[in-house]
Amino acid sequence: RINAARLWDSLDAMAQIGPGVAGGNNRQTLTDADSAGRHLFADWCKAAGMTMGVDTMGNMFATRAGTDPDALPVYMGSHLDTQPTGGRYDGVLGVLGALEVVRSLNDMNIQTRHPIVVTNWTNEEGARFAPAMLASGVFAGLHTQDYAYNRTDMDGLRFGDELARIGWVGDEIVGARKMHAMLELHIEQGPILEAEGKEIGVVTHGQGLWWLEITLTGRDAHTGSTPMAMRVNAGLGMARITERVHQIAMGHQPGAVGAVGQVKVFPNSRNVIPGKVIFTVDIRSPDQTKLDLMRGEVERAAHAVAAELGLGCSIEAVGHFDPVTFDANLVNIVRQSAEKLGYSHMDIISGAGHDACWINRVAPTVMVMCPCVGGLSHNEAEEISPEWAAAGTDVLLHAVLEVAGV
Amino acid sequence: RINAARLWDSLDAMAQIGPGVAGGNNRQTLTDADSAGRHLFADWCKAAGMTMGVDTMGNMFATRAGTDPDALPVYMGSHLDTQPTGGRYDGVLGVLGALEVVRSLNDMNIQTRHPIVVTNWTNEEGARFAPAMLASGVFAGLHTQDYAYNRTDMDGLRFGDELARIGWVGDEIVGARKMHAMLELHIEQGPILEAEGKEIGVVTHGQGLWWLEITLTGRDAHTGSTPMAMRVNAGLGMARITERVHQIAMGHQPGAVGAVGQVKVFPNSRNVIPGKVIFTVDIRSPDQTKLDLMRGEVERAAHAVAAELGLGCSIEAVGHFDPVTFDANLVNIVRQSAEKLGYSHMDIISGAGHDACWINRVAPTVMVMCPCVGGLSHNEAEEISPEWAAAGTDVLLHAVLEVAGV
Ligand SMILES: NC(=O)NCCC(=O)O
Ligand SMILES: NC(=O)NCCC(=O)O
Repeated sequence: RINAARLWDSLDAMAQIGPGVAGGNNRQTLTDADSAGRHLFADWCKAAGMTMGVDTMGNMFATRAGTDPDALPVYMGSHLDTQPTGGRYDGVLGVLGALEVVRSLNDMNIQTRHPIVVTNWTNEEGARFAPAMLASGVFAGLHTQDYAYNRTDMDGLRFGDELARIGWVGDEIVGARKMHAMLELHIEQGPILEAEGKEIGVVTHGQGLWWLEITLTGRDAHTGSTPMAMRVNAGLGMARITERVHQIAMGHQPGAVGAVGQVKVFPNSRNVIPGKVIFTVDIRSPDQTKLDLMRGEVERAAHAVAAELGLGCSIEAVGHFDPVTFDANLVNIVRQSAEKLGYSHMDIISGAGHDACWINRVAPTVMVMCPCVGGLSHNEAEEISPEWAAAGTDVLLHAVLEVAGV
Repeated sequence: RINAARLWDSLDAMAQIGPGVAGGNNRQTLTDADSAGRHLFADWCKAAGMTMGVDTMGNMFATRAGTDPDALPVYMGSHLDTQPTGGRYDGVLGVLGALEVVRSLNDMNIQTRHPIVVTNWTNEEGARFAPAMLASGVFAGLHTQDYAYNRTDMDGLRFGDELARIGWVGDEIVGARKMHAMLELHIEQGPILEAEGKEIGVVTHGQGLWWLEITLTGRDAHTGSTPMAMRVNAGLGMARITERVHQIAMGHQPGAVGAVGQVKVFPNSRNVIPGKVIFTVDIRSPDQTKLDLMRGEVERAAHAVAAELGLGCSIEAVGHFDPVTFDANLVNIVRQSAEKLGYSHMDIISGAGHDACWINRVAPTVMVMCPCVGGLSHNEAEEISPEWAAAGTDVLLHAVLEVAGV
């Protein structure tokens, strides 16, 4: 079993970096806080006897040597970046749980046949730079590095410039590493495990996603002196499409979600009818057919609303992944590890996207989930218990030992 | 007649200060650009032989002496501040038209019995600091100066601090000046005069307004892993209320308008269900009964939407004025001036709020309007013709001569 107290202390220490406003974290990717979090993680890896490699996307790889010089490494990890008002565990548990596995192996003097690598993937959240899982996506060959470097945040700052600014452009070529397998521990971010009273989620699938950025163009005009009939109100169009996105998701229950998360209104003045809005739609389903149906429905609804109000409408897909099926053999290993350790468990579909979903394209991959209180995540009040964190990390330890060989 | 070319040159020179991004202006109140615009105006007033007074709200009063030492001054003016993406004429024509009247009187060597004062009112737009017409409102006793000083902009900066920062806190007590009358020239900001082919609007009334700031509180949560049934989506609530505001205004046609202009979404991240939104509703009518009915309907609709979605809802009134009836005698004088000069004219109700609406409470007041292209205002593409500007200023000149006496 891992050292639950040490794991909890490390989670707490990391949470001191980039504190939020309500007990959580604002350690968004490529900020100074992100850089500080990376340094702390790197120091811990060094102290645990690992050697650090960094690639040109800023992905971090801390290696613990194996006994077989020809064996490919087994990867574990997740991400240290957070939402602007994020929790302490989303991503962080997966990185520090993996580190704890290595620390425990050190304590117990266990050598594995395959090397073990603990990873921190850059910009998993996609909050500052869309899409999410950007750097694991480049690693897996989904995006070019050029595409990633040119992504911009709300202030127009480029990903590539910000990565250089915080000093984390490494020298490794992204995706050059070959993996024997990858395992990602993560909190569920949903309510199912807690509701079912299970300590471990054995993640068999991940749901797919479309992120659409919709731009509506109307005409700025005075809210007082412009008669209703003369208005070309982009804000009203956004309101109608927001409602339609909700209805479309409700129409595909169960197994579908949809919402508008980010909104920019121009000129955003009390007495000006919005002449332009840009907003993002997030729709998801574990079912490929539903997902594609929903995308079509949202696009048609947006164009129909724009037409009825006389608005210009353009739609850009700024994020996408298909539903994922994780490696059956690894899924079995995770299930058996939970079983062996006596933890209650169930199979589960990941509602969120994860780096493991992309890495699954280039190596056998699996995820381990632990519950979170009330299913709450992407919220500073996100909470887990030390026992849940320990159970998930125990399962990770045993699964990794099985995969990496002793 | 006034000097139309000089007026047009002055309008053009002022438009160089705080340029917008599309040919208009961003000279928001209490910015460095606002200060620069004030200095240019002050220099012009000095060159025209006037003496400048400034009150503790930053209102500017340039006086041309009269022949009767006991006669109260006749005021003319409007505002030099603009929307973030505002036009070149909204407010500016009223200030520089008034200055042109004085310059023309100087050219023609005309002395008036009453002194004449050209005024620039601070923060008419209300774009940066709600409510609109803030400083004329303090002048007229509607607000205390304390209330005004403590208004904050989107970045939390206080009005009082920003006024001091740009160096325009004067020494006069606000509202201490007594007025014989006030006349405000303004562009219509609506489509009626142009559509009716009239050069002059004789403003008999102004419509009333409520600005409501609505805060909805839900729960930040992950857009992927939070089932639809568990969501408390503040953004969806805003969308529904935006639609209801539109329907409520449509239900009171003719003579009612309503829109949502300003929106803040928290945390405003693509993969977070909005946990909080703050947005402003602008509803107006020239009919007091309708206006109050609409306010009630909007408030009930907001609470009903919040209840159906499980959202917290609070509503603050951040701006208000009742419908206004301008001074009948002055209205007659404006109508007769247009008639005498041979300009086509019609009576009109102002759709926008104006400083004259507040000053009307403490002195006989009237407005003169000229058309604007396509009724467009609060838009950088706002446009008027030099002929319209000249016609409005000619009427202002003749009305002022009538009121101030020769
Ligand atoms: N796990 C997680 O929150 N990832 C961010 C990408 C997503 O929105 O699913
Ligand atoms: N004239 C004008 O645009 N005033 C601003 C206040 C309002 O929105 O009516």
